[in-house]
Amino acid sequence: MSKVGVIMGSKSDLPVMQDAIDILKGFDIEVEVDIVSAHRTPEKLFDYGKNAHTRGFSVIVAGAGGAAHLPGMIASLSPLPVIGVPVKSSNSIDGWDSVLSILQMPGGVPVATVALNGAKNAGILAAQIIGASDKCVLDKIVMYKEGLKVKVHESAKDL
Amino acid sequence: MSKVGVIMGSKSDLPVMQDAIDILKGFDIEVEVDIVSAHRTPEKLFDYGKNAHTRGFSVIVAGAGGAAHLPGMIASLSPLPVIGVPVKSSNSIDGWDSVLSILQMPGGVPVATVALNGAKNAGILAAQIIGASDKCVLDKIVMYKEGLKVKVHESAKDL
Amino acid sequence: MSKVGVIMGSKSDLPVMQDAIDILKGFDIEVEVDIVSAHRTPEKLFDYGKNAHTRGFSVIVAGAGGAAHLPGMIASLSPLPVIGVPVKSSNSIDGWDSVLSILQMPGGVPVATVALNGAKNAGILAAQIIGASDKCVLDKIVMYKEGLKVKVHESAKDL
Amino acid sequence: MSKVGVIMGSKSDLPVMQDAIDILKGFDIEVEVDIVSAHRTPEKLFDYGKNAHTRGFSVIVAGAGGAAHLPGMIASLSPLPVIGVPVKSSNSIDGWDSVLSILQMPGGVPVATVALNGAKNAGILAAQIIGASDKCVLDKIVMYKEGLKVKVHESAKDL
Amino acid sequence: MSKVGVIMGSKSDLPVMQDAIDILKGFDIEVEVDIVSAHRTPEKLFDYGKNAHTRGFSVIVAGAGGAAHLPGMIASLSPLPVIGVPVKSSNSIDGWDSVLSILQMPGGVPVATVALNGAKNAGILAAQIIGASDKCVLDKIVMYKEGLKVKVHESAKDL
Amino acid sequence: MSKVGVIMGSKSDLPVMQDAIDILKGFDIEVEVDIVSAHRTPEKLFDYGKNAHTRGFSVIVAGAGGAAHLPGMIASLSPLPVIGVPVKSSNSIDGWDSVLSILQMPGGVPVATVALNGAKNAGILAAQIIGASDKCVLDKIVMYKEGLKVKVHESAKDL
Amino acid sequence: MSKVGVIMGSKSDLPVMQDAIDILKGFDIEVEVDIVSAHRTPEKLFDYGKNAHTRGFSVIVAGAGGAAHLPGMIASLSPLPVIGVPVKSSNSIDGWDSVLSILQMPGGVPVATVALNGAKNAGILAAQIIGASDKCVLDKIVMYKEGLKVKVHESAKDL
Amino acid sequence: MSKVGVIMGSKSDLPVMQDAIDILKGFDIEVEVDIVSAHRTPEKLFDYGKNAHTRGFSVIVAGAGGAAHLPGMIASLSPLPVIGVPVKSSNSIDGWDSVLSILQMPGGVPVATVALNGAKNAGILAAQIIGASDKCVLDKIVMYKEGLKVKVHESAKDL
Repeated sequence: MSKVGVIMGSKSDLPVMQDAIDILKGFDIEVEVDIVSAHRTPEKLFDYGKNAHTRGFSVIVAGAGGAAHLPGMIASLSPLPVIGVPVKSSNSIDGWDSVLSILQMPGGVPVATVALNGAKNAGILAAQIIGASDKCVLDKIVMYKEGLKVKVHESAKDL
Repeated sequence: MSKVGVIMGSKSDLPVMQDAIDILKGFDIEVEVDIVSAHRTPEKLFDYGKNAHTRGFSVIVAGAGGAAHLPGMIASLSPLPVIGVPVKSSNSIDGWDSVLSILQMPGGVPVATVALNGAKNAGILAAQIIGASDKCVLDKIVMYKEGLKVKVHESAKDL
Repeated sequence: MSKVGVIMGSKSDLPVMQDAIDILKGFDIEVEVDIVSAHRTPEKLFDYGKNAHTRGFSVIVAGAGGAAHLPGMIASLSPLPVIGVPVKSSNSIDGWDSVLSILQMPGGVPVATVALNGAKNAGILAAQIIGASDKCVLDKIVMYKEGLKVKVHESAKDL
Repeated sequence: MSKVGVIMGSKSDLPVMQDAIDILKGFDIEVEVDIVSAHRTPEKLFDYGKNAHTRGFSVIVAGAGGAAHLPGMIASLSPLPVIGVPVKSSNSIDGWDSVLSILQMPGGVPVATVALNGAKNAGILAAQIIGASDKCVLDKIVMYKEGLKVKVHESAKDL
Repeated sequence: MSKVGVIMGSKSDLPVMQDAIDILKGFDIEVEVDIVSAHRTPEKLFDYGKNAHTRGFSVIVAGAGGAAHLPGMIASLSPLPVIGVPVKSSNSIDGWDSVLSILQMPGGVPVATVALNGAKNAGILAAQIIGASDKCVLDKIVMYKEGLKVKVHESAKDL
Repeated sequence: MSKVGVIMGSKSDLPVMQDAIDILKGFDIEVEVDIVSAHRTPEKLFDYGKNAHTRGFSVIVAGAGGAAHLPGMIASLSPLPVIGVPVKSSNSIDGWDSVLSILQMPGGVPVATVALNGAKNAGILAAQIIGASDKCVLDKIVMYKEGLKVKVHESAKDL
Repeated sequence: MSKVGVIMGSKSDLPVMQDAIDILKGFDIEVEVDIVSAHRTPEKLFDYGKNAHTRGFSVIVAGAGGAAHLPGMIASLSPLPVIGVPVKSSNSIDGWDSVLSILQMPGGVPVATVALNGAKNAGILAAQIIGASDKCVLDKIVMYKEGLKVKVHESAKDL
Repeated sequence: MSKVGVIMGSKSDLPVMQDAIDILKGFDIEVEVDIVSAHRTPEKLFDYGKNAHTRGFSVIVAGAGGAAHLPGMIASLSPLPVIGVPVKSSNSIDGWDSVLSILQMPGGVPVATVALNGAKNAGILAAQIIGASDKCVLDKIVMYKEGLKVKVHESAKDL
């Protein structure tokens, strides 16, 4: 059974990151949430990154803001796919720092980056990664996308 | 057996996208390469996106430049994880257009975005996604990362 | 009799896009409003784009935010002139993503882009396009511009 | 018979703007080319803008770089649809100045802006505007788009 | 006796531009305020620019937002020094459009650009330009700068 | 008789700043050229700024690149109008640092900023400032602008 | 005994700069606070910069916004390490001007730049500079970092 | 006796980082150079950061490009002052990613950031930090700054 690790650099990132947790729970995927700060708890970062793939995780979703090093450092330490959520934190310059310090990883160490504050999409992407080999989850994603469609059609009727 | 679709908006994107193809072949992962233009071959786009998950693909890697709609439209049409490679094409404004039009997808439809011209990382990420459920591929990624380490240690000795 | 299609990616774009509808109605030009999401209703997008020129439309005005693919995909599918309105939606990075993903279309597939949130100008531009071959609409535009002038002169007198 | 005016702020813009001229000639649309500098020949600008719609033009394509005021000033003076081409001239800051000073027109006075150096698309858009009321031109655009498609399919076969 | 023309593209720019008027009045310099819209009152723009130097003005201060063409067009039409104030209007992209479309004038037609919303500095600069040949105004500027110094010293004492 | 001081932060700025010197000499305005580095010769900066207005200068043109402090510090020290030329030096980030560190002066201390590398316009602006009180120089500017016009008309004939 | 000078360009910077003062006091490091404006009190700037290293200071922390010249000018005048704090003041363009005019110093004259509004980090950095030669202060920094870690672990437990 | 550690993420950063090494050797300060990649050798990163302050280093100079995590991670692990050099590497978006991912560190963990490619200034800053407690090094910095001044005066004479 697949499990997703959702981590963030600070508790202040939780309101943004909650969207990832909620969407994964909606897909009945097990989630483990933790706070891991690249800059304040480097030992925990190391342990987390080194051991994630042997602790049953399939994917890691990591959110951070400003000079956001958490997703990239986890990607450095783990062979698992890492999804990075740039958080527009209070100390950010319009989010550009969060986006660029997660997206622009050097060759060899990718981070799957989603939109600024795009934790919901990080959750869906994690489910899609699991769904790539799990027919049951794939079917749920097909249904989820069908649901998006229905809502748009309904809102069109309301015009 | 997993298969990765590598597509690009124009043949001129191939020099960049070749890195994704090469790295996937290096991991012994089957790759199918095609040119699919969101703006010039919308029917092919539609067919490709609609059918990818029933044609044996596990992941799609899509590269495009400028107002790059290919990755996002494939993500719209397919339940599979889609990795987007922003290409710094000749008509791009320093790559910002490519990056933002791939990264900033709306809630519900994620694209796993890698760095500007980061096709190599797109290939590695595709392998990691397969490795999330395939121990054999995961082991290769562990080895690949070990190789990166060795090269740095050697270059350090050369100083 | 010319007709303008005004479409948007989400109902949340309506407060911005209403300006286009209002100005076109002010010019007595028929308007048909719909919600078409490139990312959530790709089939509707396809039908809309493929058939617009046979359904009596002369111009399409399409508004979207973030990684805004609606205007460009309609331009891909339709031979009609497409006017794109970059919407500064809540998930946008200061509007740069909306602007660049609409403006920077590749050679062969233009989108007539207006200012960020510039739906009013999209409506006027649609009228000007109709006015290019319809003397009666052209005269109304001449009058509209005269009205702008008068208002400035009056505000100058108030100083 | 429709006629398109293609103007530019300086002869140095011609290598970029030639694409608009070529594409329009390819559509058998009459083109009249001129140099009109908003900053160096304001009287000519005034005459051009004031009289374009009575001189048989249907659309104006205007290209300029840096603090590019030509497209916006023609749009101020003429009721015709004006297409603006931001030119990445030598004195430009990566093209951002050209793009923003053409795109961000105030409410009431639109400029249909295309991509940086996107003169080819400006020519196609001018043809589409004429095609909005001229079935013969519309058919040529349908054929042109078909041609784009064929070229992509052929380049895909070459892979 | 020198006179400064303070103009703006819209009455909505007045709260910003008032700072220029106030500072010039504080230097006992005659000011004439008007609204001149490059995009809505092009004839008034032409008359104003063409005749300013024969109507007794020494300097023109022009403020505008978005695709701000007023300062550059006045500079095109008048041999007088023109000071441009980029206004962060509601339709602006964080002020970048206002700044770049005023600052990046082509060779031959300068605009003396001040900071975003920097109308106060535009007023001081206009006074400095007059002071370049008027000893009495120069002395006032020396005193004004002395006053700035005193205020900083006092605020330092308050710490 | 008016005199213009043209200073720059480094001899490497001379190729850009020469345009200002040439244009001023073309207007028969006396020019004194010097190298004054805010960061390497602060005492010379101080002397220059403190005494410029008593040494016969009417205007100072100051060019610098990167974190360009020369124009702003001269403006701090002198009551004369200071024209700043942002130089795109080798250590600059696309010129943005040069532009912003000259343009964005605080209230009280203006710098008349021209375009990136716009030394030619700085020279013209200096002449216009002198021309604001010197009919003979004003006439030369009128003639200069007439010359610009003629050149455009000739290049239009060449098409 | 080491002493840190904390200076700012305006009293309005104090709410941001207070963080530097507080953190230094928390490390029992002597702090002297002053207002020194590069643009309004250039003589005080000169005196401060010239004499800081003979007045017992080990480090200077300087904060300023907009075209922020204070840190760079102090670095020009003093051989001491200077820490620059870019302040997002009201006249700033999203902080970019403050950041670039402090960071991008020319070769020969460094400013140790911290994040936008990062006065807290400026204080810690000043302490680290003192700690580089003062074992007692170094120990306090080790303890401070330990404290950061503990807080993160506690917030993780609260999840 | 103080020692500076100069590290970089890749051997390709050496041409930029050599400036730091050269300047420190010019000040007779001991330098130890190494390659430490945050993303490819995380264990070496950990060891280096954890032990630097017990191995005799006073300051660490760390250079990296793109999503540059090396300086910030060393700052996370070490109580020493860390100087970060943003390197404009080939995979960088005009250097913005390097700058922002080094500069925008969260509260508690500063990196003393210098200009893009500003390794020379990083070396000087490291010397200044040592000079803050070492009179002999401080005197060398005073002399170095005197040398900068002399060179400017000589280049001014050459004009």
